[in-house]
Amino acid sequence: MSIASLPSAVTFGDAPSCEGALLLPVRGVRGGLAFAVQDWVAQEVPVALEFNGISHAVMLATPLDLEDFALGFSLTEGILDGARELYGLEAEPSPLGITVRLHVASAAFARLKQKRRSMAGRTGCGLCGTESLAQVSRELPVLADGMRLERRAIARAMSRLHAQQTLQQATGAVHAAAWCSAEGEVMFLREDVGRHNALDKLVGALAAAEVEASSGFIAVTSRASFEMVQKAAMAGVSVLAAVSAPTSFAVQTAQRARLTLVGFARQEDLVVYCLPERLAAAAEAGGCLAH
Amino acid sequence: MSIASLPSAVTFGDAPSCEGALLLPVRGVRGGLAFAVQDWVAQEVPVALEFNGISHAVMLATPLDLEDFALGFSLTEGILDGARELYGLEAEPSPLGITVRLHVASAAFARLKQKRRSMAGRTGCGLCGTESLAQVSRELPVLADGMRLERRAIARAMSRLHAQQTLQQATGAVHAAAWCSAEGEVMFLREDVGRHNALDKLVGALAAAEVEASSGFIAVTSRASFEMVQKAAMAGVSVLAAVSAPTSFAVQTAQRARLTLVGFARQEDLVVYCLPERLAAAAEAGGCLAH
Repeated sequence: MSIASLPSAVTFGDAPSCEGALLLPVRGVRGGLAFAVQDWVAQEVPVALEFNGISHAVMLATPLDLEDFALGFSLTEGILDGARELYGLEAEPSPLGITVRLHVASAAFARLKQKRRSMAGRTGCGLCGTESLAQVSRELPVLADGMRLERRAIARAMSRLHAQQTLQQATGAVHAAAWCSAEGEVMFLREDVGRHNALDKLVGALAAAEVEASSGFIAVTSRASFEMVQKAAMAGVSVLAAVSAPTSFAVQTAQRARLTLVGFARQEDLVVYCLPERLAAAAEAGGCLAH
Repeated sequence: MSIASLPSAVTFGDAPSCEGALLLPVRGVRGGLAFAVQDWVAQEVPVALEFNGISHAVMLATPLDLEDFALGFSLTEGILDGARELYGLEAEPSPLGITVRLHVASAAFARLKQKRRSMAGRTGCGLCGTESLAQVSRELPVLADGMRLERRAIARAMSRLHAQQTLQQATGAVHAAAWCSAEGEVMFLREDVGRHNALDKLVGALAAAEVEASSGFIAVTSRASFEMVQKAAMAGVSVLAAVSAPTSFAVQTAQRARLTLVGFARQEDLVVYCLPERLAAAAEAGGCLAH
């Protein structure tokens, strides 16, 4: 089979476009046969966040749900105390990326300036330096113990994530973070090339919708690193379930914040790394995880 | 089956320890049965890099091959022009993380100071701000066109990665980056919880061993994001093959640096996102990718 006899472009069903993805020409080999097609590739764009005219951080992110992203990042990084402190925002694209300008309450702006001052080391750079080793782990809320979850609610949520990962289905390149009810229904889901960004977008969406985040749990399609646990705890969510493995620092941080950390959540299986008492046994399970 | 009847700890074969991992108590459910065991979890630690007494950056990394990491990061970030500019380094652990102090040539130090000055925006922070949108994509080398690779060399390398991913086998939480000969032999492999860190460790190991990196290719077990392409190009490697998908910015950056970007490299399959002409057809393949 020669490449010339293959269609020069394939699309996905009736979809002429896919938000957050670009259609690019690719060549390849599958099952021993060469092909040349148009394929969806997830967008990754530098996104700068600016607070009341002060630039703060640049992330590489998928340019979808940027309002959620900006709000969620501000909350999980402790810049905003709540969505009410965000008065408005606008996104300005340029050839180099996207600048999102946030207009925040003076209390939040004072907090940001204090944070930057306290981070400034010998080099005058807030994100660098000896001082920032101390800044890596910030003060976290200690999560309430009240939440109880049936183990099968996690299995239910995990089995339902895929259907809502539209960008992942087109590109195979993005992670998802989902907020699920205690029954395991997927209520909010956000996608991004960066797993931290997906989680920040989710937290922003929850805050914008005024959802009581502590009444459900967060499911992520990625690994659970330290920053994922820190962001979930900042959002007040006491159970984080990841499809893949956690890191040691994630487990330590979860213990500190009293967050139930679940890894390798696949089908009915899961591994609990700390605070298993929040997971009640389902009738059919071989015993309660907490005993 | 009750948890009490299960062994309280399992270890991996005869291995009493696993470098880069901690043995932690976990509970879980597999196949409907509850268990309580000790399991290996990959270490993630804040690592600060300091150049001639000036703190520059903090990353969350697996504390393995930190010398390779420090050297590789310095090279791929354009701080060092070559390994000869690194005079020595020492790592100092503390309860908050690890500080790696690099002693570098004055030319490199001047370059770093210049880089930090040019990055400083209104906020005085080098890693933030409007200015850093312009700094995200740095000037990249344009890679030479000479390299030719048989497609099956990539398949061979991919099939051999797993056996050398010792930390991944124990923890399921880390990525690997490997440098492979043009024949597809895995010559160097490094692991880390962060895919960028794994690649930096690899580039550092190549430089320390004085390997002519352009004579082979790099295989990574992760996705190929913009930064992965940028780092590979900075290391002078003209073919990057990833197990998973690339992003749009990775493809654009690969085009700019003239790097052959391969994604979804699994078994004999692969997709080429740019510069396919470096991949020669194997005799049994359904045609040359370049035609």
